[in-house]
Amino acid sequence: MTAPVGRLSTAGASGTPHVIPVCFALDWDGTSAAIYIALDQKPKRAALTRLRRVRNILENPQVALVVDHYDSDWTQLWYILLTGAAELLEDGAREAEERREAVRLLRQKYPQYLEMDIDGNPVIRITPHRATAWSYTPEQG
Amino acid sequence: MTAPVGRLSTAGASGTPHVIPVCFALDWDGTSAAIYIALDQKPKRAALTRLRRVRNILENPQVALVVDHYDSDWTQLWYILLTGAAELLEDGAREAEERREAVRLLRQKYPQYLEMDIDGNPVIRITPHRATAWSYTPEQG
Repeated sequence: MTAPVGRLSTAGASGTPHVIPVCFALDWDGTSAAIYIALDQKPKRAALTRLRRVRNILENPQVALVVDHYDSDWTQLWYILLTGAAELLEDGAREAEERREAVRLLRQKYPQYLEMDIDGNPVIRITPHRATAWSYTPEQG
Repeated sequence: MTAPVGRLSTAGASGTPHVIPVCFALDWDGTSAAIYIALDQKPKRAALTRLRRVRNILENPQVALVVDHYDSDWTQLWYILLTGAAELLEDGAREAEERREAVRLLRQKYPQYLEMDIDGNPVIRITPHRATAWSYTPEQG
C-alpha cells in the first residue's frame, strides 16, 4: 500500500480506544503479510511505555489500522481496514534482523527516514488477520 | 475544526479496536463541546447493529477521534486526539431536536449532505473528555 499514512487504533486493558496517524510499510511475500511502524523513541522501556500505543499493545495486542482516501466527491471514497495482532520488536538477534528489514522497507517508502537515526529504534509489527475493503456504493447515499 | 475527515476508534466488549474514517461536525458553544457523526443507515436497529462502530459504542461508549495533518515535510505534521463518550441518538423528542441541529451543522460543513436524505438517520454524539494536541518537535527526529 503506497498511501503515506494510516491510522492505528489500539485499546488497553481498560478498553479505552486510542488512535493516531502512523507511517507504515507493508511486507508482503505473496503468502504472508506484516506491517511495520517505527517508533521515534530510543529503546528505553520506561520512555517507551509512556507512549499510549505501546502500553496498549503490551496490555492487549489486538489492533486495527485503517488506510483511506478522502475526496469531496464522495463517490470516490474508500478505505481498507486491517485488524490483527501487534508485537513490539525491541531486542534479540531474530528481532534485530527483522527490525533491520523493517527499517529498510520504511526507508524505501519514506525518504525522510534516510536522514533519521532509527536503526536502533523499536518497531511495531502487525500481523494482519483480516482485511475489510469499503468503497462508496450508490445505495448508501 | 474544519478538517474534512477524522478517524473514529471504538472497541467492543472484547476489547478489539476498530477504526474508520468519518465526517464530523463540532458543536462548540464556548463552554461545552459535542461532535456529531451521521450514520448512512436508516433507523432500523437490526441494520444499525450490523455496523461495527454502532455495536461497539452500545457495548462500550468510550471512543477516540483523531484529526491530523500529513505532509511529506514531517516538520508540518500534527494531530489532535479527542477521547470521550459516545452515544447513539435515535428517537425521542429531545434526541430529535439534537439530531436536527447535528444535521444542520453537518450540512453547513459538508454541502454533500444537502442532497442526501439524512434527516431521519441516527447520529453519534461524542462528548469529549480530553483533547491531546501533538505536533512535530525537532528533538523527536
